[in-house]
Amino acid sequence: MKSLEEYIKNNSKVLPGDILKVDSFLNHQLDVKLLKKIADEFKRKFKKDNVTKILTVESSGIAIATMCGYVFDCPVVFAKKSQTKNLNGSIYMAKIESYTQNRIYDVCVAKEFLSPEDRILIVDDFLANGKALNGLVDIVEVSKATLVGAGIVIEKSFQEGPEIMKKRNVRVESLAKIKSMGEQGIEFID
Amino acid sequence: MKSLEEYIKNNSKVLPGDILKVDSFLNHQLDVKLLKKIADEFKRKFKKDNVTKILTVESSGIAIATMCGYVFDCPVVFAKKSQTKNLNGSIYMAKIESYTQNRIYDVCVAKEFLSPEDRILIVDDFLANGKALNGLVDIVEVSKATLVGAGIVIEKSFQEGPEIMKKRNVRVESLAKIKSMGEQGIEFID
Repeated sequence: MKSLEEYIKNNSKVLPGDILKVDSFLNHQLDVKLLKKIADEFKRKFKKDNVTKILTVESSGIAIATMCGYVFDCPVVFAKKSQTKNLNGSIYMAKIESYTQNRIYDVCVAKEFLSPEDRILIVDDFLANGKALNGLVDIVEVSKATLVGAGIVIEKSFQEGPEIMKKRNVRVESLAKIKSMGEQGIEFID
Repeated sequence: MKSLEEYIKNNSKVLPGDILKVDSFLNHQLDVKLLKKIADEFKRKFKKDNVTKILTVESSGIAIATMCGYVFDCPVVFAKKSQTKNLNGSIYMAKIESYTQNRIYDVCVAKEFLSPEDRILIVDDFLANGKALNGLVDIVEVSKATLVGAGIVIEKSFQEGPEIMKKRNVRVESLAKIKSMGEQGIEFID
């Protein structure tokens, strides 16, 4: 998605530790017009897959998932990072290691919101080390729902996430694939 | 918003401790069609207020805020609950006490995303004890942006939040106002 690559070049910053700061449009301030274009592009890629539900993980996936729910005309479920008072009952859990926050946490989805009849599209802002996506794929597998694939906004193709997903036979559609980044700028895979 | 009240009656559960469980449509699974109707209703109420930015707090406000950003055609900013590696620089902070999680945490907004020229509409899923909204109002005040008001999906009118906002002269538009709730069901204010 060339327009997204241009947008990323113009609106993000590369920080030490291979961190791409996209706070101005993707995970602190949100450019909703851009999110709509992203959702439209995912719809174009997964239009034949009869998606019945969008799955993501809080917090930074929620905005993308919401626009996808609107475009795909289906409900969204976001995995929660902590069990709050009002999330009782039986849940699916997975462990996820956060790259930016440098810690491991549990994520959970209430069992009632994933059924074997569902056809799930996972969406997220980043695919880097693959830990978040891996945890979501685990949850979908245990729920016996069908995993249609994963729609990723920005893939850091030089990290291990894409390879992990390939080994698990998960179809990943990443709209911007970063080959390398640093002081010299960001280079995308064509 | 009568259709929302009906929806809440049919799809939520009242749990001990005055907790209204709306996991099936508002803060775990998301009914995006309902969110669109909610955003349309906020637009109807604030259409003359020249809103330039939607502000909320992660996580449960993000989906509502995203649909509002789409309908109002403006960017969204969500306050973050923890400072991650990639949120450097100068920030506005406020302390918020979570009713459902029973703890106090800091929320922060990068200063660059709120300017004195902005006209801010705050949106959130609940107004109960008012702590989250109060913290967001503090942040808007310090930023010198204009606070247009707050759009709330569900107000627990029997808790102190609405009164706190009244004392601060904040215009609050709540789409469903709960007078009382318990085993006997939910009663709304007309």
